[in-house]
Amino acid sequence: MPLIKHLSSIITVSPNLTEELKKVTIKKTVSKGDVIVNCYDRCDSIYFIEKGLVRGYYFNEEKEITNWFAQEEEFATSFYAFITKKTTNETIQALEDCSLIEIPFSVLQNLYTNFHETERLGRIITENYYIKLEERILSLQFKTAKERYQKFAASKPSLLQRASLGQIASYLGITQETLSRIRAEN
Amino acid sequence: MPLIKHLSSIITVSPNLTEELKKVTIKKTVSKGDVIVNCYDRCDSIYFIEKGLVRGYYFNEEKEITNWFAQEEEFATSFYAFITKKTTNETIQALEDCSLIEIPFSVLQNLYTNFHETERLGRIITENYYIKLEERILSLQFKTAKERYQKFAASKPSLLQRASLGQIASYLGITQETLSRIRAEN
Repeated sequence: MPLIKHLSSIITVSPNLTEELKKVTIKKTVSKGDVIVNCYDRCDSIYFIEKGLVRGYYFNEEKEITNWFAQEEEFATSFYAFITKKTTNETIQALEDCSLIEIPFSVLQNLYTNFHETERLGRIITENYYIKLEERILSLQFKTAKERYQKFAASKPSLLQRASLGQIASYLGITQETLSRIRAEN
Repeated sequence: MPLIKHLSSIITVSPNLTEELKKVTIKKTVSKGDVIVNCYDRCDSIYFIEKGLVRGYYFNEEKEITNWFAQEEEFATSFYAFITKKTTNETIQALEDCSLIEIPFSVLQNLYTNFHETERLGRIITENYYIKLEERILSLQFKTAKERYQKFAASKPSLLQRASLGQIASYLGITQETLSRIRAEN
């Protein structure tokens, strides 16, 4: 089970937790283009991606802005809405046919209560997402468009083929024209 | 002990953990202007602020940019450096005489291992800091200077007196002149 394999790369996962995860998580498949969580809805689950590519996006002045991509062995959720139980204006959409493992909020809370190791996993995974978010802010504030593109291309090379130019440009905070120019130069 | 009181506002803290925290944390006082963690140094501790005000800042094109403020009942650390064990270019400085409770990284790791409830606290506190960071990004990307100032003034009113105009302006991503104009209008 890829979820267990992924979690085992972070800490040792006990047989008990392995059994429990098999029982309480939900397999889900979605097709390319499907909306997984609609903006203005609540976001009550976190998804582990076994196969496929997902993005979170919102509208700003009628333009779609891609906020994040998540691919195989990554988690996808509208984190703000998931934690605060508020709605956000973020939509989560499958960019490819996906196999997902869904963990509903209430299931996760039970796992946190019953397994110290799940709490540890939650803490470490949240720390890692915090670090990524901080890197993203510093990059948006202080890196040039070219530097941002080069970092993206180095850290997520397959996305250059799997996501559209418009999605990547808005994620990097640049126009499609600038992105095309930078790609032509590289 | 204000740290215990603060943690008890998040979850029930057991007598065992209370005793342990009294034993393993370190009281520290620093004076206004003191550097608590120097940029380019490692950041091996997290600080709970009992009294006082602290900021994190870095230099961009020779200008000081205030990245965050932390006041009474908040934690202060260079989170990125603390978690990754890398150095960052952030300096942590006391803006007032402060009473701090220092929790070294190794002490925190032992608490995480020995007390499920500490792991839970770590997970929830990290989630809350993640939410704050996401709000800050959205604010920097999409709010006007005036909206950003008004939100800051509403959520941290005492800082308007306790921090300097330059520190607040750089935190809000605006010039001192713009900040002065907005303040005069309000």
